[in-house]
Amino acid sequence: MKAKIRLYVDHALAAGQSIPLTKEQAHYLFGVMRLAEGAFVALFNGRDGEYIARVAEAGKRRGILVCEAQSKPLQMPPDVWLCFAPIKKARTDFIVEKAAEMGAARICPMQTEFTNSERIRRDRLQAHAVEAAEQCGGTYVPEVAEIERFGRMLDNWPDDRHILFCDEALVGDKLDFESAAKGGKWAIFIGPEGGFSDAERTRLGAHPLARSISLGPRILRADTAAVAALTLWQKQCGDWQ
Amino acid sequence: MKAKIRLYVDHALAAGQSIPLTKEQAHYLFGVMRLAEGAFVALFNGRDGEYIARVAEAGKRRGILVCEAQSKPLQMPPDVWLCFAPIKKARTDFIVEKAAEMGAARICPMQTEFTNSERIRRDRLQAHAVEAAEQCGGTYVPEVAEIERFGRMLDNWPDDRHILFCDEALVGDKLDFESAAKGGKWAIFIGPEGGFSDAERTRLGAHPLARSISLGPRILRADTAAVAALTLWQKQCGDWQ
Repeated sequence: MKAKIRLYVDHALAAGQSIPLTKEQAHYLFGVMRLAEGAFVALFNGRDGEYIARVAEAGKRRGILVCEAQSKPLQMPPDVWLCFAPIKKARTDFIVEKAAEMGAARICPMQTEFTNSERIRRDRLQAHAVEAAEQCGGTYVPEVAEIERFGRMLDNWPDDRHILFCDEALVGDKLDFESAAKGGKWAIFIGPEGGFSDAERTRLGAHPLARSISLGPRILRADTAAVAALTLWQKQCGDWQ
Repeated sequence: MKAKIRLYVDHALAAGQSIPLTKEQAHYLFGVMRLAEGAFVALFNGRDGEYIARVAEAGKRRGILVCEAQSKPLQMPPDVWLCFAPIKKARTDFIVEKAAEMGAARICPMQTEFTNSERIRRDRLQAHAVEAAEQCGGTYVPEVAEIERFGRMLDNWPDDRHILFCDEALVGDKLDFESAAKGGKWAIFIGPEGGFSDAERTRLGAHPLARSISLGPRILRADTAAVAALTLWQKQCGDWQ
């Protein structure tokens, strides 16, 4: 009962539950991947863990899977958000993919002073997060939030969420991340190409819940910085401990 | 004397030194970036640190820069290699870019049992490493080695270079990276999609200089794993300490 394919479905999962497939899912499983009736697929929906399901009906544009046993419990990622300024399309896609793989709980695009691309296709980015979750074996899909202005985001910032501010101006400094509060709710802030503006840096620096860290002596691209910061955080405060 | 553009040149750098530009460099600086005579460019060659140079002659297909003062000393990265199995073209490019940004000293493509693309364009990958060094402010460019078979690589493995083996089979385990030897020479091994084969895992596991680490409870793509492993290594043993 080994499934090679993992599929995200927007449907409740439980032993014995029938899952109708969308046209796209049926096309992928039966047209592209050539699964036949009786084959196994791993399903998750972000809420009920992972189930092994059997193909009960396989059509060109439709199909039904039936859940057998739960193969993984729901594993929520630690409560860390990734707040980032969208960059060029391919790299923005990449950041979303990486955030999902690295176990961010929520992905928050933000518009900063130096953000070039103000529009994002939220649905497309969400699809990237789903695909990354399918790929990495996770049972949870982080939500991609609507883009929000940096200022408004901080105006409405929750009282209990720490901010890890990846400060380009600290390049070369060796700030002590070890002393960062473990546990609790966190958000990682990654600036756009060109970094945060002086006003934004001042605002973040003065925020009572924010602490700055350096990501080494080289200047990292935003997509590299996102993976590096999530690595440090997961290792120090998250589920890599 | 602030330079917005950083350029890698294959020429000795010293105060007063004239640097003739290639056709491509002249086109980039004067055609694309529209620099005029008297403008400043930051130059590095991977050996002499970074110099601020002034445009002395600007032509369509040629130009001369004259070095003024050194703006950064040569900063060698710590002695860590990234050994990885090439994957799809875009992701292989990405791994090389990320390795350079993250301060790998040498980038070693390796052909494993599950490696799909056996051919790489070494010159093209080297150009990606140069571009990443230009971008990240580094003064060093890691060499991209010729691709080598996994077995032969280990047959000729240097006696004094530790191996950090990112083992997908350890997903979920919490191996203690803290106890890894600091200092000394290292190489990080990242497998291809599908991981290392059982024979390869056994060989790495038995290697006296190798230690395995887990990169958290989710399965990371090779490009994500490269950044995450370099982050952990730089933080623990390298120049992020």
